[in-house]
Parts: sequence; structure tokens; C-alpha cells
Amino acid sequence: MSTAILEGMRVVEGSAFVAAPLGGMTLAQNGADVIRFDQIGGGLDFARWPLAPGGQSLFWAGLNKAKRSIALNLRSDEGRELASALIAEAGMFLTNFPARGWLAYDVLAERRGDLVMVALAGNPDGTSEVDYTVNPATGFPWATGPRNFSEPLNSVLPAWDVAMGTLAAFGLLAAERHRARTGEGQLIRLALSDVAFAMVGNLGRIAEAQLGGRDQPKDGNYLYGAFGHDFETRDGRRLMVVALTARQWHALQDATEIHEACAKIEEATGYDLSTETGRFEARDLITALLRPWFAARDLSAIRELFAGTGVSWGPYQTFSQLVEEDPRCSTANPLFEDVDHPGVGHYLMPGSPLWFRAVEREPVRRAPLLGEHTEEILADVLGLSPTEIGRLHDAGVVAGPALAGANPDGH
Amino acid sequence: MSTAILEGMRVVEGSAFVAAPLGGMTLAQNGADVIRFDQIGGGLDFARWPLAPGGQSLFWAGLNKAKRSIALNLRSDEGRELASALIAEAGMFLTNFPARGWLAYDVLAERRGDLVMVALAGNPDGTSEVDYTVNPATGFPWATGPRNFSEPLNSVLPAWDVAMGTLAAFGLLAAERHRARTGEGQLIRLALSDVAFAMVGNLGRIAEAQLGGRDQPKDGNYLYGAFGHDFETRDGRRLMVVALTARQWHALQDATEIHEACAKIEEATGYDLSTETGRFEARDLITALLRPWFAARDLSAIRELFAGTGVSWGPYQTFSQLVEEDPRCSTANPLFEDVDHPGVGHYLMPGSPLWFRAVEREPVRRAPLLGEHTEEILADVLGLSPTEIGRLHDAGVVAGPALAGANPDGH
Repeated sequence: MSTAILEGMRVVEGSAFVAAPLGGMTLAQNGADVIRFDQIGGGLDFARWPLAPGGQSLFWAGLNKAKRSIALNLRSDEGRELASALIAEAGMFLTNFPARGWLAYDVLAERRGDLVMVALAGNPDGTSEVDYTVNPATGFPWATGPRNFSEPLNSVLPAWDVAMGTLAAFGLLAAERHRARTGEGQLIRLALSDVAFAMVGNLGRIAEAQLGGRDQPKDGNYLYGAFGHDFETRDGRRLMVVALTARQWHALQDATEIHEACAKIEEATGYDLSTETGRFEARDLITALLRPWFAARDLSAIRELFAGTGVSWGPYQTFSQLVEEDPRCSTANPLFEDVDHPGVGHYLMPGSPLWFRAVEREPVRRAPLLGEHTEEILADVLGLSPTEIGRLHDAGVVAGPALAGANPDGH
Repeated sequence: MSTAILEGMRVVEGSAFVAAPLGGMTLAQNGADVIRFDQIGGGLDFARWPLAPGGQSLFWAGLNKAKRSIALNLRSDEGRELASALIAEAGMFLTNFPARGWLAYDVLAERRGDLVMVALAGNPDGTSEVDYTVNPATGFPWATGPRNFSEPLNSVLPAWDVAMGTLAAFGLLAAERHRARTGEGQLIRLALSDVAFAMVGNLGRIAEAQLGGRDQPKDGNYLYGAFGHDFETRDGRRLMVVALTARQWHALQDATEIHEACAKIEEATGYDLSTETGRFEARDLITALLRPWFAARDLSAIRELFAGTGVSWGPYQTFSQLVEEDPRCSTANPLFEDVDHPGVGHYLMPGSPLWFRAVEREPVRRAPLLGEHTEEILADVLGLSPTEIGRLHDAGVVAGPALAGANPDGH
């Protein structure tokens, strides 16, 4: 067993909201020393919902785990100088701040010629865009929701931010690999709308629109192009059942004993239920066949009946049910630990989902308090003396720990 | 300008569906030589929707761009031997096939001691799970949809697969970095349910459920914890408007001239609209104030009025409207090229959204035909002679090119 998989990597992060913090956290939870700098008092995401009962941002705490935090007055020349010095020292920089002025790559690279920097933006031209404004443009909200519902429906999950954050971390590793082989630094640009629209293409939706000239209509909880639907159980719970592959389809027919009925449907309609397309075309009939079977059984009974059969299914859970009922979301799963969030309480925190056999699993580390590591970073990374650090404190250029919570929002 | 960012990396992929193919494509579109092997005739995802008018899978074509393809009879010892030899030669292996038997890490590592392998699974215990069955468990479908709608609503985007595929590519790079520094190989495990539940935690939802004891109810297209909503325009289009930050809120008030009305609302209700929480609490009032403004203007007029103001907004588009109306999804954006898909036609294909300044942008390369590179891979990577390759063809162990399309689904 050796040390962390990203041993020896240091990354400075200047960020807010989801994508950039998630990218930094992905690196930090895999062993990189990630230093997030923030404006004293907190950045734009310091009060973002969800909030703890005491007002602290659980969002901020969730997306900054395992990092170190330094609080600087970024409106002062001295504060910017400290951030620039940290970036030069680390040699890697992740940001969704505008990459211009003192944060322009070429300015930062004057102090560190082989700097690797990833600059996240909303659109390729640098204009702003957030997940909640780019998602409507992708087409997915018009394909989401009950049949014949006349309005677009947004996703509650900021999926494009999630994809972008992970891709930013990938880009940093790719550029660091290149640097290790060539000595060359790198500016990486990544736009949220590009992440989203590329994925629309990757999933075949652009080609379908161009070649087929039609849009997938809203189709409730049906799977597109195969069989999948939700069902209500006798005890009022819901579950999703999917038959993508032939094996899953046979397992579902076996477990629910609908083989004969399916054969009759094939005779009656001409649909070929042995193909994905046939099962999609016959989805209303298959659903109607299956509904009474689920309505006659409790969720727990169905769980037992499906265990080991190869049926592809899963229960619907609220966030609370996930935490209360699902053993995969508990300390029985080494992904999670029960960790103390100072001033807020204990709760389940996830580490990195990646498990590397030849290195030790990183313990789950909470997010820092804002400015929790200001002094140690100034001392250890920049080599400043206690006297100099004291002067910076007194001058309001740096600040120590503060609890994440409601900020004045007066930016 | 030098060569591709992942120059010199070769990865073998044994995969189906979204996550593993997307992980391999992320590597391939950034310059790695990614060799996907498939059963002759195509794997489980070879006929997956969406389909082209001629029946070919646009899904398969979308998720396997820039790779090379070899078709093998994986039910034969000789076919498995060829796949194992390719894995040993490449030294990196990405799969969502069960990592046991001939695909167990320890078996493969006998031929390549420093093998880096990422094994994707549905659940941490290795049992099966797909995006459509794990998403119901996350809590998001119960938080999605119109207010008071009594059923869970699924996402049409397989967001967990997307996150997992990108994270798998990140994991491979992290392990290759570790190998370059220590000489040590690596088995990486990654489970879809862990990816999903970790993200539920990262976004603060687990802590909120545990500490607050409540679930976010369905709230239509409102943003959670700040102001954001959709509006209909005079010409029947829809758009999303967001005010997360103070700057966005002021810009929105300026552009729609609701400053005075907002001040009156504050007086009347006590909500403090200068905070994110206050804007969230007053969201119905703000929406009611804004609705007539949007209803009185066409989308094109609103686009002009908002340009350069700092208002955060975006139009809803269907997939077709994205392709037809949005310049970001066209060859005006270097992300996209108009590429020929043999036997299907030309359509817009995305490359990697990552742009690296110090290397040349990779051209957009289409997905291979199934088995398109069988012969060249056997010759160049494994060093087989034409005679031996001919024998393998004749014995049905390998096969050459076939168009992606409907397969018998007889697995």
C-alpha cells in the first residue's frame, strides 16, 4: 500500500457554485492538495441552498470537502498578489472566474512558465451561462414529463455542472501528463454549453433531429427505445422496471409470469417482443399487463421475489427514504462516513466513488471552514513569517476561520 | 504546437451502453488510441435507440467516436485470447463487463504486471444497476415536476452514466500517473450507485434530509433557494430566467423595470429581496410581477433587450430547435463538424469540449464501423501475419466491417 493516487499534486482553485468546486473536490478526494481561495466573508456560493437549520450552506460544505481554504481580500493588490503567488507555487490552477486581468493565463504564466490552468466559462465566447439556463437549450426539458403536458420541465439535478466539473478534473490530469512528458504548460478552456451540447450529440439526439426531422415527445417515465416503466405497489410505493437486454426481458417475463400473455399480444398485434424496438412499440400493452402484478404486492415482497432473478428494477425513494432505507447510503458502504461538520452536526458524507486497489482509501474529510487554513498556507506554501502573517491580518488582507453561512450577498 | 494531449496512450475497451463507452470516447477524442472490442455482430448496445431512418444506432455511433473497432468471437477461447493479448499490449483496460473469469484483474495482470484497469459496476457488490433504475433511488424524481403532481418523474438524460463515464476516464489518468511515478499497476472499481449517491451528498441533499428532516417538494421550474423561473413569450416561446447573484438580480430588475414594484413587495410582505433566501421565499410574487413583461414581448425582442445587460437567462429549445436555431450547435462553433456517417448521411458531430491551447485541436472523427479496424489491429498491435489473420477470419474468430444497426438481440 502506498500513498494517495494523486500524491504530490497541488492545485489552487478560485471558484464558486458547482462545476469548478466539484472539479477541485474530485482532485482533493483523490489525494491532491487543493487550496481554494475566497474573498473574506465568502464568495458568491457561500450562502447557497440547501441550508442547515442554523443557516450554514450545506451546498458549500458538500462541494468543498477535503480542500484547504484561504480567505483573502481579492479587491486589494496585496490579496491578489498572494493568490497569484499561490498559483505560481502550485503550478496548477482551476477557476470559473473570468480568466482576464490578473487572472489571465499569460499574466499568471509570467511567474510560472509551465502553469497548467483550466478556465471554465458559460459559453465558448466567455459570456455567462449557468446550468439552469443552458439546460433549457439542450432539448431535454421539452422531452421530460407526462405525455401531453404542455410545458417544459427542468431537471432538479444540475447534470451539466456535474459533467463539466468532472471533465475539468480530467483535463487538468491530461495536461499535467503532457507537462510531465514535454515540460510544456497549458491553458485549457471548457464551456458549459459545449459540455451540454456535445452530450446531446453523443447520445444521438442531434443526429436524430437532423436525419429524422422529429423530436421525441414527452413520454412520462417510459424508457426511450426499449421497455421501461414505473409501477405502483400495493403499499403505495413506486418502482422502476427496465428490460433493455434480452436477458432482462426474459427475467421479467419469468418473474411476473407474463410469457403466455406476451405471446398472445405478439399474435394480436404483430409486435416482435424479442426486439428492443418491438418492446418499445408495445410499451403500453406490456405496462398494462404488468400493472396488476405490482399492484397486488408490497414493495418488500417484490424485492424478495426479484432478488437474484436478473430483473432490472429499482425503488423510488425520496431523499429521506434514501438516507433511512437504503443500505448503500449508510456507513455500511465504505463510500460514506459519519463526519462532524463544526457548528452543524454529524451527517453522512461521501468520499470519492473511485476505489484504487493499490493505494489506501482516503478518509472522508469535511469541507474546511472559510479561511481555516489561511495561516498554515501562508506559512508552509509561501514561507511567510509569523510577523508578516500578523501584518496581513491586521491590514485586512487575509482572514482566519469563519463558519459557512448566510453572507450579506452584497457583492 | 505539438501532438495530441494524450499522445502515446493506448486503452482497450470492452463495453456496452453509456458510461464505459463515454469514458473511452473521452480518452479517444483527446488523442488516446482507444480500441473497443465487441462480439461479432455487435454487443448489447449495438441496436440501441435513437435509430437512423435506416435502422442504424445513432446512440452507438454517438458514444464510440474516434475509437478503433475490432470484432471478435468472445465465446471462443481464441477470441478471448486475442482480447487478452490486446489488453496486455495496451496496458490499460476500461470495461463494464463483469470483471471475473478471463476478465478478472489478476488473470489479466499475469500477462502485464503493471496493468491499469477500471471495472465499472452497477452496485458496489457487483450486482447490476442501470441509470434508469438507480436514478429513482436518488430522490431526484420525487423532487421533479409540477407542484402537487403525485408521481415521480424520471430524467430523460442518463446523467449518472455521464458522470460515471467521465469519472472512469479521470480514474484511468490518475492511475496511469501513479504508474508512471511508481511502476505500479492498478485495479480501479467504480459503481454507478456510488457515483449517484455521492453526488446527492455533494449537493447537500443528504445532509438536508438528515438534519432538516424534510424533503424538497416538487416545485415546477422554480430554482431551489434563489430566484429562477420559466416564462412564456408573446410568440409562444418559453425561456428560463435566473437570479442567483446580486448582480444578476439587479440586472433583471433593471431590464424589466420592476425595482419599484419589488420595493413595495418588500414593504408589504417583509421579504428581503436583497438575499437569495428572500427571493426564493418571494418567488411566486416575483414571477407574477415578471410574467406580463415577458408575455408582451417576442423572444427575439427579449434577446435584444437582455444582450449585454448581465441578465442570466436562456431560451427553451427542442432538440430540433437546438440544431436549427442555436449557433452554438453548428459548424460556427469549432466543437462541431459536419461528418459523414457511412450509409447514414452527414450530420453535426461534436468533438471533445476540452480545448488545450498548446496542442492542436483533434479533428472530429466518426465512430468506426463494427470491426472496421480488425485487420489493422491484429497486424499492427499484435503483429499477426496476413496468413494468420486469414485463418482467424475463416475460423470465425474475427470479423471485418459491418454497419451499426439492428442486431438479432439474441444474447
